[in-house]
Amino acid sequence: MREFIIYTHGVTGPFRLDDLPGAGRMDLIARCISNAIFISDAIRRDVKVYIVLNGPPNPPKTVIFDAAKIKRTSPDERNIASHIRIALEKLGDKREVESEPGITIKKLGFKELVEEKIRKQQVIYMHPKGKNIRNFEFQPKFAAIIGNHKGLPREVEEYLKRMGVETVSVGKIEYFASQVITIIHYELDSRSNVN
Amino acid sequence: MREFIIYTHGVTGPFRLDDLPGAGRMDLIARCISNAIFISDAIRRDVKVYIVLNGPPNPPKTVIFDAAKIKRTSPDERNIASHIRIALEKLGDKREVESEPGITIKKLGFKELVEEKIRKQQVIYMHPKGKNIRNFEFQPKFAAIIGNHKGLPREVEEYLKRMGVETVSVGKIEYFASQVITIIHYELDSRSNVN
Repeated sequence: MREFIIYTHGVTGPFRLDDLPGAGRMDLIARCISNAIFISDAIRRDVKVYIVLNGPPNPPKTVIFDAAKIKRTSPDERNIASHIRIALEKLGDKREVESEPGITIKKLGFKELVEEKIRKQQVIYMHPKGKNIRNFEFQPKFAAIIGNHKGLPREVEEYLKRMGVETVSVGKIEYFASQVITIIHYELDSRSNVN
Repeated sequence: MREFIIYTHGVTGPFRLDDLPGAGRMDLIARCISNAIFISDAIRRDVKVYIVLNGPPNPPKTVIFDAAKIKRTSPDERNIASHIRIALEKLGDKREVESEPGITIKKLGFKELVEEKIRKQQVIYMHPKGKNIRNFEFQPKFAAIIGNHKGLPREVEEYLKRMGVETVSVGKIEYFASQVITIIHYELDSRSNVN
């Protein structure tokens, strides 16, 4: 099971599908989900993506895509963003809702999510200064934390350090979060028999 | 100089920005350009992307993005697609137009483009059965041919074989063309001092 936790500035209220960049870089968020879940003509069923939305008006919220269960989702930005919009609509004042098959939204913040994960599985933080991914030993079930284009706030980085979260690097270049996801998949695919 | 030649079924006439998948998978094409040119908060200036459009109504046409010269282009699908739409509009009945800074469109087909490239530089074809990319020696200036989600027609593959184009593989998994581009960049970044 490959899990990705993306810290984002995505909005937590209504937004226009015609202006995804204006919705806290919802375009970038959609590309993360797209690269985490889809390959050409297939879905990676062993993937979960946690999108932590820290944008206005009501942060934080976390949208979870469980690739084993999703339906009617396609890899283009507009389609993926439309599912996030539906999730935000359906949550309303509730604490948690399964808005569509395989898509859940929760009133849940980044630290709470990370603490929950650390109790159960390997958690790593992708950062240019971390250990080289090529020599890093992934557990069969892991969660990789990835910042978005603004990276993680210093206070959040310090929190991860205190929690003992290991840092892993795909090199000095500051790739997009969505590109880091592709690279993690590729590195792990290369190690396994499937590739 | 890293060049990418993408063989696509993108349309060659007007299309709606609200339905990129319906325009011969213009979403997929936009993601290729996005991953070829952009990293987080920066542009890879040493990149050219050749998008060969083979869709209706007037194929073939080739749109060229020269990252050294582009302006006002952002990495979201809708923005990139809008530049392709402008290019198609401006071409009209002409043979070649620079539609915006760094964006050129030509009445040029895949084989003609490949022949032109082969005369000048290393040309490779990305295919699951090719040589492993990790051991492959890239020339400083190369052009990588990548099929879209439908791959290349058999007749085109045979043409590349006859022309002596080497095949290079990123593994058995059928990644999206846009993901293959990210992987090529990553492999080359890893070899260089920048990463």
